[in-house]
Amino acid sequence: MSSQSIENDLRSHRVFQNVNDAFLKRISSKAQLQNQNKGKIIFVHGDTIERFYFIKTGWVKLFRETLNGAQAVFDILGESHLFGENVIFDNNTASYSAEIISPTQIISLPLSDLKTEIESNNKLALDMLQSMANHRRLQDKEMEHRTIQNASQRIGCFLLRLVDQNNNGPVVIHLPYDKTLVATRLGMQPETFSRALSKLRDKTGITINGATIEMESLNQLSNYSCAACSSEFPCKDLKS
Amino acid sequence: MSSQSIENDLRSHRVFQNVNDAFLKRISSKAQLQNQNKGKIIFVHGDTIERFYFIKTGWVKLFRETLNGAQAVFDILGESHLFGENVIFDNNTASYSAEIISPTQIISLPLSDLKTEIESNNKLALDMLQSMANHRRLQDKEMEHRTIQNASQRIGCFLLRLVDQNNNGPVVIHLPYDKTLVATRLGMQPETFSRALSKLRDKTGITINGATIEMESLNQLSNYSCAACSSEFPCKDLKS
Repeated sequence: MSSQSIENDLRSHRVFQNVNDAFLKRISSKAQLQNQNKGKIIFVHGDTIERFYFIKTGWVKLFRETLNGAQAVFDILGESHLFGENVIFDNNTASYSAEIISPTQIISLPLSDLKTEIESNNKLALDMLQSMANHRRLQDKEMEHRTIQNASQRIGCFLLRLVDQNNNGPVVIHLPYDKTLVATRLGMQPETFSRALSKLRDKTGITINGATIEMESLNQLSNYSCAACSSEFPCKDLKS
Repeated sequence: MSSQSIENDLRSHRVFQNVNDAFLKRISSKAQLQNQNKGKIIFVHGDTIERFYFIKTGWVKLFRETLNGAQAVFDILGESHLFGENVIFDNNTASYSAEIISPTQIISLPLSDLKTEIESNNKLALDMLQSMANHRRLQDKEMEHRTIQNASQRIGCFLLRLVDQNNNGPVVIHLPYDKTLVATRLGMQPETFSRALSKLRDKTGITINGATIEMESLNQLSNYSCAACSSEFPCKDLKS
């Protein structure tokens, strides 16, 4: 994979949209493309890390785990997302763990170059602030849903985020990763998820075939889930 | 209240520690000190706002509410905290509501001055990034606790955050605001909170007298709550 191709990948991310070519060329020349398989731990919370990551293809889980193995999943990130970049504000100590959950291509990049650049490039700092503000808004919505919505409504909201919400006709949704992961992403035990999905089907008339979910329109799903949410449908608050 | 006194208040906040005197003088000259009482809504999510706020004394609740009145509380902030400042990254649209929950003095400041300054002062942008990164770490811990800890353990963790965790002797804790608010801060119904607090007393031997909680040492509380947490006690991850 060429350094030019990595530059193009990075340039597509909001955080790098305004950096100059020289910086992008420099950091891309130090990039390493890695092919990783399901189960690979990239780093563990508490680790001192030297690199951050751009997801080229695949899925990565961000989480923390107790000594007893109980796990809290903060996010599951797909292609064109960064992770580990916020670590420059925590003395290079990872505040979460990162695990590959499907065959994934990640590009690793040196944190030191990011840190040096952000200290002199105000546009980069502002784009990173924008990115962190968006993240805060999404985290607040997540907290709201865990407080107010029931498990079925939260699954409904998860499905609504996978589609064009202005679609008025029939909709087919393919789950992006397996149901066990969707459950952990939503902070549910697999049994809870399974019961809640059945209840969602009964309440909204959706059809579930393995990882494929079909419905005649989004109306029933949005009526059901968004009734217990402070945002309006179509939803502007969940855009990342 | 003098403009000089407001400058000193602002200078005490991490975000303003490195700004120059000219900026601090300019923004402080446009400050308004407000005395507000419990129940006053400062702004509602979705509002376009022009000012952000520094809490001089008292308590402010940040939350969102559905049309049906269900409420999710994101934070309860005390003195020397800012709120509304992140709104400059959301086109001046508030992503949460802010309500006064006790007699409170707030200092309002123009968002436009903050925005103009941050666009040219990279030190300010970096200090704000640091502040937002800390906030993200705290939010991730909150999410972890809601996923892994039971209600009693979460109350225990809330209490541990109010004390010097290196204290080896007897400890007396005064709740900073009333129990109903502690319950909403922790995302619990009042009945759940009440049951969970009794269970915490039974599990750890703490003594509860209204808003005062006493114990012979922090050991039992930390053993009980931190067993279901990925951080170590004394806790470095919950520092704001």
